[in-house]
Amino acid sequence: MSQNDQPIKPWGGRFSEATDAFVERFTASIGFDYRLYHHDINGSIAHATMLAKVGVLTEAERDQIITGLEEIRAEIVAGKFTWSVSLEDVHMNIEALLTQRIGITGKKLHTGRSRNDQVATDIRLYLRDEIDAIAKELTRLQQGLLQVAEANADTIMPGFTHLQTAQPVTFGHHLLAWFEMLQRDYGRLMDCRKRVNQSPLGAAALAGTTYPIDRAYTAQLLGFDAPTENSLDSVSDRDFAIEFAAFASILMMHLSRASEELVLWTSSQFSFIDLPDRFCTGSSIMPQKKNPDVPELVRGKTGRVYGHLTALLTLMKSQPLAYNKDNQEDKEPVFDAIDTVKDCLRAFADMVPAIQPRKEKMYEAAKRGFSTATDLADYLVRRGVPFRDAHEIVGKSVAYGVQTGKDLSEMSLAELQQFSTVIEQDVFAVLTLEGSVAARNHIGGTAPAQVKAAVERAKHNIAAR
Amino acid sequence: MSQNDQPIKPWGGRFSEATDAFVERFTASIGFDYRLYHHDINGSIAHATMLAKVGVLTEAERDQIITGLEEIRAEIVAGKFTWSVSLEDVHMNIEALLTQRIGITGKKLHTGRSRNDQVATDIRLYLRDEIDAIAKELTRLQQGLLQVAEANADTIMPGFTHLQTAQPVTFGHHLLAWFEMLQRDYGRLMDCRKRVNQSPLGAAALAGTTYPIDRAYTAQLLGFDAPTENSLDSVSDRDFAIEFAAFASILMMHLSRASEELVLWTSSQFSFIDLPDRFCTGSSIMPQKKNPDVPELVRGKTGRVYGHLTALLTLMKSQPLAYNKDNQEDKEPVFDAIDTVKDCLRAFADMVPAIQPRKEKMYEAAKRGFSTATDLADYLVRRGVPFRDAHEIVGKSVAYGVQTGKDLSEMSLAELQQFSTVIEQDVFAVLTLEGSVAARNHIGGTAPAQVKAAVERAKHNIAAR
Amino acid sequence: MSQNDQPIKPWGGRFSEATDAFVERFTASIGFDYRLYHHDINGSIAHATMLAKVGVLTEAERDQIITGLEEIRAEIVAGKFTWSVSLEDVHMNIEALLTQRIGITGKKLHTGRSRNDQVATDIRLYLRDEIDAIAKELTRLQQGLLQVAEANADTIMPGFTHLQTAQPVTFGHHLLAWFEMLQRDYGRLMDCRKRVNQSPLGAAALAGTTYPIDRAYTAQLLGFDAPTENSLDSVSDRDFAIEFAAFASILMMHLSRASEELVLWTSSQFSFIDLPDRFCTGSSIMPQKKNPDVPELVRGKTGRVYGHLTALLTLMKSQPLAYNKDNQEDKEPVFDAIDTVKDCLRAFADMVPAIQPRKEKMYEAAKRGFSTATDLADYLVRRGVPFRDAHEIVGKSVAYGVQTGKDLSEMSLAELQQFSTVIEQDVFAVLTLEGSVAARNHIGGTAPAQVKAAVERAKHNIAAR
Amino acid sequence: MSQNDQPIKPWGGRFSEATDAFVERFTASIGFDYRLYHHDINGSIAHATMLAKVGVLTEAERDQIITGLEEIRAEIVAGKFTWSVSLEDVHMNIEALLTQRIGITGKKLHTGRSRNDQVATDIRLYLRDEIDAIAKELTRLQQGLLQVAEANADTIMPGFTHLQTAQPVTFGHHLLAWFEMLQRDYGRLMDCRKRVNQSPLGAAALAGTTYPIDRAYTAQLLGFDAPTENSLDSVSDRDFAIEFAAFASILMMHLSRASEELVLWTSSQFSFIDLPDRFCTGSSIMPQKKNPDVPELVRGKTGRVYGHLTALLTLMKSQPLAYNKDNQEDKEPVFDAIDTVKDCLRAFADMVPAIQPRKEKMYEAAKRGFSTATDLADYLVRRGVPFRDAHEIVGKSVAYGVQTGKDLSEMSLAELQQFSTVIEQDVFAVLTLEGSVAARNHIGGTAPAQVKAAVERAKHNIAAR
Repeated sequence: MSQNDQPIKPWGGRFSEATDAFVERFTASIGFDYRLYHHDINGSIAHATMLAKVGVLTEAERDQIITGLEEIRAEIVAGKFTWSVSLEDVHMNIEALLTQRIGITGKKLHTGRSRNDQVATDIRLYLRDEIDAIAKELTRLQQGLLQVAEANADTIMPGFTHLQTAQPVTFGHHLLAWFEMLQRDYGRLMDCRKRVNQSPLGAAALAGTTYPIDRAYTAQLLGFDAPTENSLDSVSDRDFAIEFAAFASILMMHLSRASEELVLWTSSQFSFIDLPDRFCTGSSIMPQKKNPDVPELVRGKTGRVYGHLTALLTLMKSQPLAYNKDNQEDKEPVFDAIDTVKDCLRAFADMVPAIQPRKEKMYEAAKRGFSTATDLADYLVRRGVPFRDAHEIVGKSVAYGVQTGKDLSEMSLAELQQFSTVIEQDVFAVLTLEGSVAARNHIGGTAPAQVKAAVERAKHNIAAR
Repeated sequence: MSQNDQPIKPWGGRFSEATDAFVERFTASIGFDYRLYHHDINGSIAHATMLAKVGVLTEAERDQIITGLEEIRAEIVAGKFTWSVSLEDVHMNIEALLTQRIGITGKKLHTGRSRNDQVATDIRLYLRDEIDAIAKELTRLQQGLLQVAEANADTIMPGFTHLQTAQPVTFGHHLLAWFEMLQRDYGRLMDCRKRVNQSPLGAAALAGTTYPIDRAYTAQLLGFDAPTENSLDSVSDRDFAIEFAAFASILMMHLSRASEELVLWTSSQFSFIDLPDRFCTGSSIMPQKKNPDVPELVRGKTGRVYGHLTALLTLMKSQPLAYNKDNQEDKEPVFDAIDTVKDCLRAFADMVPAIQPRKEKMYEAAKRGFSTATDLADYLVRRGVPFRDAHEIVGKSVAYGVQTGKDLSEMSLAELQQFSTVIEQDVFAVLTLEGSVAARNHIGGTAPAQVKAAVERAKHNIAAR
Repeated sequence: MSQNDQPIKPWGGRFSEATDAFVERFTASIGFDYRLYHHDINGSIAHATMLAKVGVLTEAERDQIITGLEEIRAEIVAGKFTWSVSLEDVHMNIEALLTQRIGITGKKLHTGRSRNDQVATDIRLYLRDEIDAIAKELTRLQQGLLQVAEANADTIMPGFTHLQTAQPVTFGHHLLAWFEMLQRDYGRLMDCRKRVNQSPLGAAALAGTTYPIDRAYTAQLLGFDAPTENSLDSVSDRDFAIEFAAFASILMMHLSRASEELVLWTSSQFSFIDLPDRFCTGSSIMPQKKNPDVPELVRGKTGRVYGHLTALLTLMKSQPLAYNKDNQEDKEPVFDAIDTVKDCLRAFADMVPAIQPRKEKMYEAAKRGFSTATDLADYLVRRGVPFRDAHEIVGKSVAYGVQTGKDLSEMSLAELQQFSTVIEQDVFAVLTLEGSVAARNHIGGTAPAQVKAAVERAKHNIAAR
Repeated sequence: MSQNDQPIKPWGGRFSEATDAFVERFTASIGFDYRLYHHDINGSIAHATMLAKVGVLTEAERDQIITGLEEIRAEIVAGKFTWSVSLEDVHMNIEALLTQRIGITGKKLHTGRSRNDQVATDIRLYLRDEIDAIAKELTRLQQGLLQVAEANADTIMPGFTHLQTAQPVTFGHHLLAWFEMLQRDYGRLMDCRKRVNQSPLGAAALAGTTYPIDRAYTAQLLGFDAPTENSLDSVSDRDFAIEFAAFASILMMHLSRASEELVLWTSSQFSFIDLPDRFCTGSSIMPQKKNPDVPELVRGKTGRVYGHLTALLTLMKSQPLAYNKDNQEDKEPVFDAIDTVKDCLRAFADMVPAIQPRKEKMYEAAKRGFSTATDLADYLVRRGVPFRDAHEIVGKSVAYGVQTGKDLSEMSLAELQQFSTVIEQDVFAVLTLEGSVAARNHIGGTAPAQVKAAVERAKHNIAAR
């Protein structure tokens, strides 16, 4: 990036002194907003098209502008464009070159708009496209989860609360819990998209413009649902950035939870799954290590996205209307949140179908830890014992099991009857893992039949996107 | 609140040692979750009704439970209920008294559920009702804004960017910018509501239950849209709390911006408005002070709501499934965010219609600061000068005005013609504030006609809620 | 708390309209700042004493004020004081009663000060005392850690990186890592204390006062290190609250890490430790559960403290000088952060000495997972193999071990020599856990001798506090 | 940066499958940690020097390594080094080239250390140097403030509370409030530095090393105060990053407050100061605008630094010991916080001495708004009226002034005597701005004499750094 350009500032007329060189670099945004070039050019083309429609430009002028912009776009794509810090931002970089190329007509492009509405338009267009890309990766990850869940609808593992063995569940059921988290994320993303997809173009600096612009037309050309309702709000609003960062934060929180579980499950203490080597790295000093780097890193990246949300909320707090220079700080957090979310989703979408469950380890773990204690309590209730009393009886049986080192299913009938005389031989059916799991047979329950039904509903739901 | 009750823990059977007294207080949630009593009782009644429907309870048992719970509710409302720290939480406090009152049947109420799904149900019911209350206050504030905006559709004030005079706008137009912010908040609140209004009841501890429960029926009884899809997710999900806190944070950010402007406008430097004495307080030492305490405090309260969002995101980061004790920390941030948002909206809804604009001060301020410079540029463009050149010409005129202490409208035609010979006598029409404002006559623009039309659309929109 | 008092506002003279009842409640701080009563009274006594010294009050007036304040303090302690919302805050509640009791002299107490410097003084005094209480609990926890570390200086457990077995360490060494975290916390707390312990009293509303006050004298009476340097800064500064919240956040982060480990270690997969029943709770539905509620809750409470830090930073962002009403929002986050930190430290200080290590489980786990692979690499290096090559050799040995299900120490010499011919019989000495641990014998290393030496240094260090 | 290198991973031996290409890019840190090259090389040189001292390397090997590293450093500085993504990070990039250059000896450099302690050492060294650079800019800004404060020790302006005119102060006094904020920042920075400046080198992967390393020696060679005390803590600790981010956040909060005031003061409503054109920019559409971009942008950048603090706190929450891959995420927030703070301090240090106060505007504003009302109250107290009664009397005088449009100093003696008969002719002396300011003549007060004395103390204090 060059700083040596001539200072053809778009606002120099009133000034008696050139901008300080450090200040120029400090206040320039071209270092990061060059990313918007594609959408900036699209926005300019729509604006020029509208200006021609309402008679502010001639058709020839419009065509000259469009051709000039498309050439610039091609140069940028080809890596031949030199961005200038003196020209502050992506908008002025492109417009300055356009004018250099096509002369006086280039100067007419900015008629009836301001950088304030232009940048708001650009970010919204950019964000909308990225939302669509994210939705695609999110869907791919969800599909991977459904695939592994379906294959493991009856793979039994211990379900945990407080990281203590609670009740047996199936691995498929567990993965569907992740699916549901992402399902809400998808909903939030679509809700965010509808508020992003409004056109601020035409708000100009803050109050609208005196030219006979047609805002509905530019909105339509750019695929926006509608023009925004208030010009002051249009140039000062950054809700879309914050709402997106809130979506991204919750999504990352979900991925951090899944990551935490993947890290636990690959530990030698759990050994519930294997991750293929290609998703792991080793140690420079400990030759035996196979580290679950990908989930760890995703878990770690949660922080940066939370940080961007904090940054954006702080940024907007207490700002008087309308546009203030502070708002330039909206871009980097949004860009980095987009990149992070896309990368993490991609990493997960690639990795999830490759998870190899170690079914025997899961099953063995589920057998330990009195995971069918609740089933025993339910058995007692079905025999007429009030729930709270049944709970007490089973509590004592477990205490006995802890002392004697026996699981409930390993006790004799006589041993069990010490705690309640209503227990009979048929109790052993409810104390098996398979029996326990199959008995939770209602919507949302862990019974394999329910897991399969949930997978079907989910597939149907995703297909309808 | 009493700590001296007998320790009738719901889970004592397995334990050989009583809970440490400090630990008991430290881990108890009754100090704040008592708030949920109303919804806890509603949830229990629905659960008992369903248990009777599917044959787990008799109709007589159901009725006994319902009557018992309604008596307890009446006692709580009457302030006659003594909450016990030993009973940990609102659920056990109510259930213990129920059992004490109606005996063994009370113990049957907890059949087929767990505190994990019970508390998730309670919070969602509570939050749904509070969302509806917030929606009402939000609407009231929006109506107040429309009323003042309508009355001031042509009250001219300076529009600012960078807190520098930019272009004249109308006070009504400015207030509609606030309205639009709240409009998005309303949309987010309704989107949040739909994800809140799902029934986790029946997820039990984490895996569902072995009883033949009917989750669709309890969902319907409680006014939920549907049961949740996955039991593990149902007891571990706190997205609704975070999404609500994100809504609340953005709303508070908007109120902080409006507050900042009210504080500025009541300063003696701006003097744009008066706030009635009843919304202000004085100083203990400076007898002349009339401080805009209400907007200042609202601005300050933005921090606490952002803080709650941070707290909840941090809380959930990296938690393995399903329920962990950490989740108990979800309530206080949500409760305080609700209270804060309701209070701040109420304060604003009361205050906004009482704002007294000092129209002459606003008008005078708009006349200063070369606020019609853009109009002059547009005038030049209409006479064929390319926009960028027009900008330069006006920049020089302004520099001249700064030196000579003259606004553009105060310069003679000859003075103006120094900078461009295309300027003629008719320029003075575009240099008036009224002309400037009226010329921005497109959707979203500041022209009084547009402001009035926007008010009409907004009224219609709100009426359709 | 009563709202029915007569509205004897300290600032009523200029106002033509009473405060709105809701506004009164909304803006009042007495609901939480009553906590400051003790320090408010101390501050007032010091102020009165100084006013008498410089001749603004007579000695008789001073004594009358002090006696009156001490009576009020006794009433508050005895629970006989009725706080009034109409009187807004702790300062006016106390002063109003004082005046009611001792008449006109009470009205003289506020001479030469303002609520702005008064409240800043009160919070600093309060916070200083709480810092000292926190330092005591922190020290108690550190002492508990040293005690358990010393007793387990040679208890071998697996050391983890990436939650994968890395190298054997001792349990004592691990606990000393926690000690070191707290050591830095202690340092930060003391650094914070020195910036808290400055006296703002005398800054008055914002500019100082026209009375001949002696700020050094009140600073000395109240145990402050010095008066603050600038009156505007004194009433607007809330750094002390933020710095304290930053200290508290880092401390909670440390406790969250220790909590995470306690939760892992009590899981049936790890089974490294037992926590006594009195620090655990059970489940309302699963009778076998013994949940590590205390560490889970501490981990969860991390969020609320991070939230308070966010709240305070947000609060102060962009506030113009000097005092604004926003600042009233500084108290609740600080109070809750204090309470949370004290409770969590107390819970840990009580719990840590009661941790029961399951030494055999730890030892067994350390044997698995190729934890001495690095030792083999180091062995090879000592025999002249470059480190990077040794790493490669051991990597292949481990791959062989994974396939054959053998730990390194379980392979025959011939098997090991497949990978490098420099390996000889003496290799088995370095492959034992004891040998591995003892060999890391330098400052900070895990060798039992180093752990014991570190405990000694730490005891000495703490004794010097 | 090239991805096409051969995958010479430092940990390949155990792996059967190559890293996925996306995973390689996703997990690599070289994209940002290349910044550490200078300190990484310094650390390696110290490590090699120590290894030679204790006999692990020969002197010839040490020299070969040092020479090789210095050549690499020179190439990096000259921009001739190609960083490879396949080599993951700065450490492996440098070591791989070293080994390529000097052969087998290069492989020996990593003896007795791990990337875990290496990276911790690098960041601490880097951060220490940046802290020193920040301290320098902070001092330069403070010196600028003292210079302007001294020149304006008696420039009268209105002091505000609640942004309402409160009492007259001097501009010098106001700038000294900013100075005091920075004074605390400096203290926090130095306190942070002492905790940064500890050497983790020798902690190796997590447990220390079996080589006879001399940690005190490497600590000394690198200018650290001492080696850290515990190896597990050394590789997992990131407190220094968080503490630095907390310092940076509070500093940015202070700059945001100063920025807010600069923006207010340059508004046409306040007009208290002029900023030179070189610190301002204009508008692309409004030719008259001169926007205070620099303070606005600094205010906006507060958000990003708060965000980094949030990111780092989130990152470390609940991480089990010792090193986890998550920690790789510590660098970017720290780097960006450093850059932001340095840039903002530089911008302010350049700008502050160029602030041009518009003294007559300030004076005029101070005369409005009853700023000497407190002085009238104090006058009454000195005549024996209790403070609270005096407050009431002045309140009524002000209410009269608001109605009649007269400042207190503009009322006749008769008018004033309506409210209290103790008022006499000498009252007018205390109602002047000069009299008011001069009367606040105690440490920290706004009297010009006090301001000058404070400047002297501050200069002395800074000189002693």
